[in-house]
Amino acid sequence: MSKAMWGGRFSKSTDEMINEFQASINFDKRMYHEDIRGSIAHARMLAKCGILTEEDRDKIVKGLEDIEQQIEDGKFDFSVDLEDIHMNIEKRLTEAIGEAGGRLHTARSRNDQVALDTHMYIRRQVTEVQKEIENLQQALVETAEKYSDVIMPGYTHLQRAQPILFAHHLLAYFSMLSRDFARFEGVYRRADIMPLGAGALAGTTFPIDRAYVASQLHFEQIYGNSLDAVSDRDYIMEFLSAASILMVHLSRLSEETILWCSREFHFIELDDAHCTGSSMMPQKKNPDVSELVRGKTGRVIGHLMAMLTTVKGLPLAYNKDLQEDKEGIFDAIDTVKFSLAVYAQLIRGMKVRREVMKKAVTEDFSNATDLADYLVKKGMPFRKAHAVSGAAVHQCIEQGKYLEDMSLKEFQVLSPLFESDIKEAIRPETCVKNRNSYGGTSYEQVSLQLKAAKELLASEKGMAEAAREKQI
Amino acid sequence: MSKAMWGGRFSKSTDEMINEFQASINFDKRMYHEDIRGSIAHARMLAKCGILTEEDRDKIVKGLEDIEQQIEDGKFDFSVDLEDIHMNIEKRLTEAIGEAGGRLHTARSRNDQVALDTHMYIRRQVTEVQKEIENLQQALVETAEKYSDVIMPGYTHLQRAQPILFAHHLLAYFSMLSRDFARFEGVYRRADIMPLGAGALAGTTFPIDRAYVASQLHFEQIYGNSLDAVSDRDYIMEFLSAASILMVHLSRLSEETILWCSREFHFIELDDAHCTGSSMMPQKKNPDVSELVRGKTGRVIGHLMAMLTTVKGLPLAYNKDLQEDKEGIFDAIDTVKFSLAVYAQLIRGMKVRREVMKKAVTEDFSNATDLADYLVKKGMPFRKAHAVSGAAVHQCIEQGKYLEDMSLKEFQVLSPLFESDIKEAIRPETCVKNRNSYGGTSYEQVSLQLKAAKELLASEKGMAEAAREKQI
Amino acid sequence: MSKAMWGGRFSKSTDEMINEFQASINFDKRMYHEDIRGSIAHARMLAKCGILTEEDRDKIVKGLEDIEQQIEDGKFDFSVDLEDIHMNIEKRLTEAIGEAGGRLHTARSRNDQVALDTHMYIRRQVTEVQKEIENLQQALVETAEKYSDVIMPGYTHLQRAQPILFAHHLLAYFSMLSRDFARFEGVYRRADIMPLGAGALAGTTFPIDRAYVASQLHFEQIYGNSLDAVSDRDYIMEFLSAASILMVHLSRLSEETILWCSREFHFIELDDAHCTGSSMMPQKKNPDVSELVRGKTGRVIGHLMAMLTTVKGLPLAYNKDLQEDKEGIFDAIDTVKFSLAVYAQLIRGMKVRREVMKKAVTEDFSNATDLADYLVKKGMPFRKAHAVSGAAVHQCIEQGKYLEDMSLKEFQVLSPLFESDIKEAIRPETCVKNRNSYGGTSYEQVSLQLKAAKELLASEKGMAEAAREKQI
Amino acid sequence: MSKAMWGGRFSKSTDEMINEFQASINFDKRMYHEDIRGSIAHARMLAKCGILTEEDRDKIVKGLEDIEQQIEDGKFDFSVDLEDIHMNIEKRLTEAIGEAGGRLHTARSRNDQVALDTHMYIRRQVTEVQKEIENLQQALVETAEKYSDVIMPGYTHLQRAQPILFAHHLLAYFSMLSRDFARFEGVYRRADIMPLGAGALAGTTFPIDRAYVASQLHFEQIYGNSLDAVSDRDYIMEFLSAASILMVHLSRLSEETILWCSREFHFIELDDAHCTGSSMMPQKKNPDVSELVRGKTGRVIGHLMAMLTTVKGLPLAYNKDLQEDKEGIFDAIDTVKFSLAVYAQLIRGMKVRREVMKKAVTEDFSNATDLADYLVKKGMPFRKAHAVSGAAVHQCIEQGKYLEDMSLKEFQVLSPLFESDIKEAIRPETCVKNRNSYGGTSYEQVSLQLKAAKELLASEKGMAEAAREKQI
Repeated sequence: MSKAMWGGRFSKSTDEMINEFQASINFDKRMYHEDIRGSIAHARMLAKCGILTEEDRDKIVKGLEDIEQQIEDGKFDFSVDLEDIHMNIEKRLTEAIGEAGGRLHTARSRNDQVALDTHMYIRRQVTEVQKEIENLQQALVETAEKYSDVIMPGYTHLQRAQPILFAHHLLAYFSMLSRDFARFEGVYRRADIMPLGAGALAGTTFPIDRAYVASQLHFEQIYGNSLDAVSDRDYIMEFLSAASILMVHLSRLSEETILWCSREFHFIELDDAHCTGSSMMPQKKNPDVSELVRGKTGRVIGHLMAMLTTVKGLPLAYNKDLQEDKEGIFDAIDTVKFSLAVYAQLIRGMKVRREVMKKAVTEDFSNATDLADYLVKKGMPFRKAHAVSGAAVHQCIEQGKYLEDMSLKEFQVLSPLFESDIKEAIRPETCVKNRNSYGGTSYEQVSLQLKAAKELLASEKGMAEAAREKQI
Repeated sequence: MSKAMWGGRFSKSTDEMINEFQASINFDKRMYHEDIRGSIAHARMLAKCGILTEEDRDKIVKGLEDIEQQIEDGKFDFSVDLEDIHMNIEKRLTEAIGEAGGRLHTARSRNDQVALDTHMYIRRQVTEVQKEIENLQQALVETAEKYSDVIMPGYTHLQRAQPILFAHHLLAYFSMLSRDFARFEGVYRRADIMPLGAGALAGTTFPIDRAYVASQLHFEQIYGNSLDAVSDRDYIMEFLSAASILMVHLSRLSEETILWCSREFHFIELDDAHCTGSSMMPQKKNPDVSELVRGKTGRVIGHLMAMLTTVKGLPLAYNKDLQEDKEGIFDAIDTVKFSLAVYAQLIRGMKVRREVMKKAVTEDFSNATDLADYLVKKGMPFRKAHAVSGAAVHQCIEQGKYLEDMSLKEFQVLSPLFESDIKEAIRPETCVKNRNSYGGTSYEQVSLQLKAAKELLASEKGMAEAAREKQI
Repeated sequence: MSKAMWGGRFSKSTDEMINEFQASINFDKRMYHEDIRGSIAHARMLAKCGILTEEDRDKIVKGLEDIEQQIEDGKFDFSVDLEDIHMNIEKRLTEAIGEAGGRLHTARSRNDQVALDTHMYIRRQVTEVQKEIENLQQALVETAEKYSDVIMPGYTHLQRAQPILFAHHLLAYFSMLSRDFARFEGVYRRADIMPLGAGALAGTTFPIDRAYVASQLHFEQIYGNSLDAVSDRDYIMEFLSAASILMVHLSRLSEETILWCSREFHFIELDDAHCTGSSMMPQKKNPDVSELVRGKTGRVIGHLMAMLTTVKGLPLAYNKDLQEDKEGIFDAIDTVKFSLAVYAQLIRGMKVRREVMKKAVTEDFSNATDLADYLVKKGMPFRKAHAVSGAAVHQCIEQGKYLEDMSLKEFQVLSPLFESDIKEAIRPETCVKNRNSYGGTSYEQVSLQLKAAKELLASEKGMAEAAREKQI
Repeated sequence: MSKAMWGGRFSKSTDEMINEFQASINFDKRMYHEDIRGSIAHARMLAKCGILTEEDRDKIVKGLEDIEQQIEDGKFDFSVDLEDIHMNIEKRLTEAIGEAGGRLHTARSRNDQVALDTHMYIRRQVTEVQKEIENLQQALVETAEKYSDVIMPGYTHLQRAQPILFAHHLLAYFSMLSRDFARFEGVYRRADIMPLGAGALAGTTFPIDRAYVASQLHFEQIYGNSLDAVSDRDYIMEFLSAASILMVHLSRLSEETILWCSREFHFIELDDAHCTGSSMMPQKKNPDVSELVRGKTGRVIGHLMAMLTTVKGLPLAYNKDLQEDKEGIFDAIDTVKFSLAVYAQLIRGMKVRREVMKKAVTEDFSNATDLADYLVKKGMPFRKAHAVSGAAVHQCIEQGKYLEDMSLKEFQVLSPLFESDIKEAIRPETCVKNRNSYGGTSYEQVSLQLKAAKELLASEKGMAEAAREKQI
């Protein structure tokens, strides 16, 4: 920043390199809209409180609106010498409207100004992330409905465990995303607090009206402690936490997508538009998008770690370290929104190989639990039934066959409780149908889940839309 | 685990070393209470649904209650061979009550059982962390009241910036802790979901009543998707996020405590009980507690990092990697509770050197903003007033004096707007009193803050107490 | 610690809870051997320099050796009141030998004493980790030799890419581990620096001989700056970095082991001794060890994160935060050694399904690059050959067949350069044999790799053994 | 990337958004120089081995050199459609020289090509980081010499502990940086391995000469395993580890600089050129550079965490996740180089307030150890002497004075061993002078340290210069 800005305290101009080192204009210009809208609200409040004349207020508002237009038209030259978005705009304003521009900063400091901009920006981005969450949830619901009768192996330890509905599997991700949505509600609440008026750290001696600023900018709450207002970065850390957990969810979905695309699983085929090839191997069709999302999970977690480390051990109130709060979260916002958006496309575009999934269910022992349950229902204690079922599996493996291939006689050697209905009891379709406990994989339960998912989605959409409408 | 537990599938016994590698009994025994209470609720539900006889149920309940008593009396030998707390208890139960013990595991799996225990455990710990938060908040309020008229320098960039009330400074931490409390409310909500009945991953074929289990154990919600129920570790990651942010707050308070204890600041004196000496340097009185809390911040952040990395990229549903969810969060719980508790003591025990703080305010330029504000109120644009004030500071530094030492004449050379009331305007007490905007540091505003803090504290206490009463 | 230890500075006894909070005896007792050997070396040096009488020295040495014996016999009661291992031992020593015990701490401080112990401990553990690395490398070499002719698909993007030798795949891990070994050499070098004599922070006024201590304890270097000596934790951070990278390697091997054990890949079968079953699903045989190692990767990374965060921003010299340096690295050491050891067992015990791997190579397009290379060798530019090969693959997929199934005519429609030798050129064995560039997968190259691996292993063994012999 | 690049495999064009999501050109264009020099070396090798005609080779070399010129002249339009730097250059080359351009990619893949570029880039950056390390070390040495007789309090627990030389304090950072330099040597060694020739993953069928490529590009080693060559990111993780530890060092120096600039310590004054002011508070002169460096420490640690998490659990060989290896390390490189460079300036520009430091030493008890040592030298056991010294301190505090103010009589009440030379023994200058053990703070030892530092610096310079000369 030109030392001129700080008046007479300095006798030497900041070294060029250091200028560049500490300038934030290259990344904080992204908040130009919030800076301008915040300044307009501030100017209106100053006039309402008699600190600014109505004439000055009108000049300032008009001047700022002009600048916003110039920025959006790509006609604004940002200057590294002016360090940040706030000084870039204020300098231009003063050039345009003269002395009135110099009055805009009355009763505020860069500390509360940058806090205001960031709160507004994050608050809006939360609603945009939520919109992308809904979009992906919608894609999951649609796809679950489209393939509502497809059976696949459910896995634990990446071993086939029990037959499940593919729709049930997709809806597990719907549930995760619902919690993500709720977590971002929490982030919103803690971003939706108005810091302006905290001054540099201690409030201001001017008779300002913070509630009026909050109401113009649609803030629910106002910081009740000025030191806290300028040094709080909780909402940044909390956003990055919520984003990290969300990315962990997407990384799990990515791992599965990549597995399912492999020649070995072969469960799905992605749309060509979502894959790439190889510069050397002509046959390759790579699930790059899923790999990238899985990889970018580390990136978002890294930003969280960066922020926690940066804030750790800082005394109150503002320290320049806190300028490091922006680049990480900006990148996290882009990454999360992009990842959700491409996944919604990818899920909608993928084709399911139902026959391959079906075959995977029949050529394995994922019905062994049902065999044990059958015996329990005939009166055998669970631990014993579990042992009998294990013995049956063992015998099949040695003979190179599956449970379906065992004769009733063979079953009865293992336990006299087996009767002819055992065959039906271990068919994959029966296994699925019978897991009819609440939240289970049965057709009935999954259909109830789908209904509940749609209702939740509708309610989320309502909430997020209402929040989006409040953004300036 | 003794391979006997898994019936006939295996032909060889697990290698000793690997046994030890994967056993979790050394840390998961901490959840014995939850495991037993969960099993009792499960047994009662099985009986209610006709899956277990009333006789078996009674044997099981009695047997489990006996085991709980043995554990609490220190008479229970935990065995690494039985791998985890669940098998240790079930094995003992079966030894004690015979075949009925073997029926307890009907319609459940270790996957949903361990999920249930962990949910119950974390849910309870959230309420205990909240209790410690309140305790520290209470200590801050008391101490703020005790020193309600003490003035100290407020800092930005660790440079004296403006005079503030010491109480105002303490209450900034009250505000941070209020957000921590609220964040843990979110963790509670997402831990308060009942997973039992999800079976290994797909639900169960038995006609169970999950709502009855939830009601016995006071869960608000039930997982609607069985795959999600056994693989969800969001509440662990979210707890660790909330705990990390909380520790970041305490690390900031620690940094300040350490600074204030230094000979250079000399603002406070800690109680001897909260300090230690040196084995070599007899004069030392070290703020060890604060240093340890600041250091342990890294530890909790590390646990968060560990958990995010561990879950990243895991396919559904359960994978053994998830066993790594416990040690980190157990340690984080202990660390957070301990840190909050010792800080409440430390804050209550510390003595404030009001004269030192006062002196710090008068021997510096932290009233320079007030000088600028004075001019603005006389009609000068802010940027210009800022420059004049800077020039005054510059001149004082060159002459080795403070603003208070300047004569009216000297002021008037800088601007004719200065009048005789300038002296009063830049007294520290005036500076404090005049920052009377909402959330500011004035006596009036801080007194309002204290009132609001007490109200919030009362409401938090009500909420947390209600939640604690619901714990089993 | 009993306040008595610090002489007369304190008037009140430390609060019980805080005592427990800051005591380190529960984890630092692990370094009892280093503490005793370090003290003996210190006592001998003091006597050599005339600071201690020979009589006192002999009493001290004898007393310390007795204590070591008591500890190893399990007859030593560690006391939390005495805070740490150093005070526990010194207190006992003074009880046993009287006033001479009080002279042992002459010319040292706990700051340099704990630094010495930790350096010695880590230095030794580095050599033990290296031993486990060699052991796993040995297992990889043996297994690669055992299956030296087995062909499997090589993957990129988890898509089959080109046929490779299974031995080649295993040796990739050998290479990674070689770099791990070398990285730990660096850790060793930076742990192998002697801090004793730095005193609390500034050196000592006694005429000590640090070189004599270093030579008794086989240290290569001595810290040249006393402030650095007591505040340096680089070797801890560097150990944790090396350990994290090592665990990342093992996590990759784990991911592959888990994939290969899945029903879909079915490439290997683990020994029953290295797997576990399911409490609910009798057919399961889970690769728990691999999952745990993959999961524990997060744990070690978490410890690294914790340590970096803890040291960040600490002023010189010693701060109590640094006490947090031990638990994380102790756990990391155990985790890394255990993970390496179980993996050596697991690799040695696994069985390879060569037929399944072979089938995987023939039923896919992993020879498409060879088709393109064939054309390039006949004179077609690479990019064009790549396109022709892609078209051939495309055509096969549409017709439900593989490249091997295409007739020469079909090939010639795509390019007249194809001749009858194309059939041989795209056989998996040919593809493998032809990748004979240095480091490639051909039989010849892999056999050279094996030879080089054995040579490297021999040299590593020599280096590590020499280092182990130097440990006290 | 335009699907045209991958030949005939795909029937649909990649979606626009996904294109952008996976394109790396915006950050990997930074490696244009390495890409071109690597391709030239590859082309020369192909010609040497008879795979390419000399005519084609010459066209390629000329074409690539032209492109490099265009890029450096700012006349090259990078296209997101061509995805990455490799394709951007190859496409342009083919446009310029026709079919020969299509032959350049013979016997290589993007997997080994991008690995080569990254190795070359990192290898060079290591030498540049080392240069900046030397520069800062040089600044430390100069400043230590400039203020070689200045005494300041040495701190532990941020409590004044013992008097030390300011030069001794600065040289502690010199030592840390020397270890950083050595760690980067390790990074260099593990980056200095040549991957080209590994092909996509398995080597190539062409009779290439990898050693010739290595020799042209001055690589010491060649990857001996092709799978390892394309999937190894150790050198990235290791660079980020070394960079994180380095930044932790700078964060400690920053913490101290910030403390020393505070009004309370007041030990130094930074040059105006390295500070900034406040938009609200005219008197502020903030140590922004130090704060930023301390804050940016989190950023670099975050990149390390990101990379470890990203690679964790990836199967061999190349996965698209690995594309995430670049942005983090590029940013870390810039941050580390910048931080080192600004610190060299800042250290050189700062002014030391020797009187303030001196006063700090005399008005405290940092000579209490010397009091105890005095008694020990007169024959008292250390623990007892420590207690006597503690009592003296206690008595002074109660009487509001310092040890220097005690009369000989008062001393003798505490112990008859005190004689008249006690006064001299506890003067700060004596305390400093007497800490003459190797590595201690005495004038003699610090002067020896300075000598050793200059020698080390000379040797580092030699090494790094030699390495820099080897860069292409």
